[in-house]
Amino acid sequence: MESRNLDGLLVIGNAEHNPPMTYLTGGGHVSHAVLLKKRGYPAMLFCNQMEREEAAKSGLEIVPLAVVPIRQLLKDTASEMFIRAGLTAGRVGAYGRTDVSAVILALSELQNSLPRLRFVGEDMDDNIFLRAMEIKDQAEVERIRRVGRITTEVVGLVADYLTSRDMHPDDEILLDEAGAPLTVGTVKSRINLWLAERGLEAPEGFIFAVGRDAGIPHSVGNPEDLLRLGQTIVFDIFPAEAGGGYFYDFTRTWSLGYATPEAQQLYDQVKTVYDKVCDNLDLNAPFKDYQRLACEEFEKNGHSTPLTNPSSVEGYVHSLGHGLGLNLHERPWSSLSADESNRLRPGMVITIEPGLYYPEKGLGVRIEDTYHIRPDGMMERLADYPYDFVLPMKKSKN
Amino acid sequence: MESRNLDGLLVIGNAEHNPPMTYLTGGGHVSHAVLLKKRGYPAMLFCNQMEREEAAKSGLEIVPLAVVPIRQLLKDTASEMFIRAGLTAGRVGAYGRTDVSAVILALSELQNSLPRLRFVGEDMDDNIFLRAMEIKDQAEVERIRRVGRITTEVVGLVADYLTSRDMHPDDEILLDEAGAPLTVGTVKSRINLWLAERGLEAPEGFIFAVGRDAGIPHSVGNPEDLLRLGQTIVFDIFPAEAGGGYFYDFTRTWSLGYATPEAQQLYDQVKTVYDKVCDNLDLNAPFKDYQRLACEEFEKNGHSTPLTNPSSVEGYVHSLGHGLGLNLHERPWSSLSADESNRLRPGMVITIEPGLYYPEKGLGVRIEDTYHIRPDGMMERLADYPYDFVLPMKKSKN
Repeated sequence: MESRNLDGLLVIGNAEHNPPMTYLTGGGHVSHAVLLKKRGYPAMLFCNQMEREEAAKSGLEIVPLAVVPIRQLLKDTASEMFIRAGLTAGRVGAYGRTDVSAVILALSELQNSLPRLRFVGEDMDDNIFLRAMEIKDQAEVERIRRVGRITTEVVGLVADYLTSRDMHPDDEILLDEAGAPLTVGTVKSRINLWLAERGLEAPEGFIFAVGRDAGIPHSVGNPEDLLRLGQTIVFDIFPAEAGGGYFYDFTRTWSLGYATPEAQQLYDQVKTVYDKVCDNLDLNAPFKDYQRLACEEFEKNGHSTPLTNPSSVEGYVHSLGHGLGLNLHERPWSSLSADESNRLRPGMVITIEPGLYYPEKGLGVRIEDTYHIRPDGMMERLADYPYDFVLPMKKSKN
Repeated sequence: MESRNLDGLLVIGNAEHNPPMTYLTGGGHVSHAVLLKKRGYPAMLFCNQMEREEAAKSGLEIVPLAVVPIRQLLKDTASEMFIRAGLTAGRVGAYGRTDVSAVILALSELQNSLPRLRFVGEDMDDNIFLRAMEIKDQAEVERIRRVGRITTEVVGLVADYLTSRDMHPDDEILLDEAGAPLTVGTVKSRINLWLAERGLEAPEGFIFAVGRDAGIPHSVGNPEDLLRLGQTIVFDIFPAEAGGGYFYDFTRTWSLGYATPEAQQLYDQVKTVYDKVCDNLDLNAPFKDYQRLACEEFEKNGHSTPLTNPSSVEGYVHSLGHGLGLNLHERPWSSLSADESNRLRPGMVITIEPGLYYPEKGLGVRIEDTYHIRPDGMMERLADYPYDFVLPMKKSKN
């Protein structure tokens, strides 16, 4: 708080699915809460009295209110919370993921009743919480590792399921158990089920995209699409502990039965770049150095990249990776414009995810794993999974 | 917008789990987007170019950007979005559920570059979106009904599962399939699984609380708790369509095997008040009239209520119900302090959920269903489920 010249913190919203509040409270069913912290003093958590027992699990000083705290912020008595927390003057950083409109109204009213306070925001890519969350302790890494283990287990189930399908005798379309064409929607339902069975959720969904959709990095996949042999499937799955906890982020690209030479070539190029990046990760190096490396390598193969064509929708069109924790995407950042403070430090958890995209050709390839930068400087992949591009079908065509 | 004296709307954040953006875009995997609408003109949706195809499903005018739009808001060029939308002066309402800190920073910087704009917030309980969402069309009601049908199906599975358990021979503790004591955590895992199998998710969790936890309205239940005969179980389940869609809200209170006379009496009192309220719901009446009715009825039985003791943690300690849609809780409101505009109008979907709580006695009772106020004025319960308090066990004690 000192380095940011902040005299206080205001964190608003639920304890779940709200990283700053989750980080400070440990989660739990505490909704529309208000946390106030004066610099140098312990934090106070204002919660609804109906949720006082849930809030107490945080170990923070709890102040139960008869009204929902975020509504209290809108009342004449709002300033009482700040007075109680000893926060009546100075710069207060406001954080949390909640209703924007209510916050704007509340802060403008509070400003009137406590004119010596000044509420300030921060860049969402580099605020005080993202800095604090950037280095994980061993317990956090173990939680992420556990999510990774379950994630890759589910990916394995998906691969087994797809390769065990019957195919239509006349064409190369996969069939479901009832003999009807298997859709992306059906596969996605199974994935949600397999995640839920294992205590994970997909709060930001996941990507299972084929054909042209696979060529658009963030297209989640069309539920009506059918699955055919020889087509690229981008499967990017980023689940979290149920209730808004730690994430994992993982991508494989598959081609069922066989691959076209064009797709195989793209895959090989992505894998080569992936390996080159992973083999060269150095402690304390700026993350964007590896984005630059990936761009240079892809450009050698004639692909457009952000290095020379930042607005291209073909070729390599995103950044190399990102930090991961209670946020799916957090510091450190790897984009070419990221500042030098985004370095690979011990205790960080990052993703490495190069890719190539040609939507008009129906082609997309991405490979992604999540790595822990160990205190001894080793880069440790948090879950292992094979890198096969072509998945052989277990049954021959009917 | 006219009645609120707004010249423009700014909506920020994801298209999923962000009701104002979900309402305007129809959902989909569009993240950190910015929607601008000048009064009298169509809305423009600024999205990341990687998500342009997902964004196009909204049917809105799409402006793909090379940077994530919410980050664009923080750049020198942010004002370009506003200029492009023709929004350079006047009062702009800012909405959405997203990172508070980034929004505060962005709006203060925008204010500098476009000094004739003024960003305004609204009360989270009564903003322009909650007003627009208050009346549902038939398609929305059918989506809520479908969630209700699945919700009650899952509740039935839970009842079957609990009543089919073996019991420990020496005491009245339920046992799982392996013969170990059944925990609340195990039951909750099964509920999440059954919801996921049916395409629902529980973005705000759910309550399965026994004993003392059942006496605290928003305690979600302790995963280590065991299940015993003759103990009240409050099961409040509020799932939504997966991906951030319409909710349903439903509560039953059960006592397995038998009930104590004290618990049975509380249950009967809650059911009587529930029936009295439901029998008297009148079109266009203020919702809070029924909160008052519920309070008066509970006070006749000697319970504390918000009518005479708003800060009590025993007795009837919350309000009667709430509107429901893309938000779990939305207009109309039933609290005694709600203004007169919160009336029961055709097209609304509301919950009715009276309850009584005695945490120190380990007792809690709540009954809740979701109702549609039909255009013909009839109150229609959107999913039927029995009101049995005591659930007989199917097997006798070992």
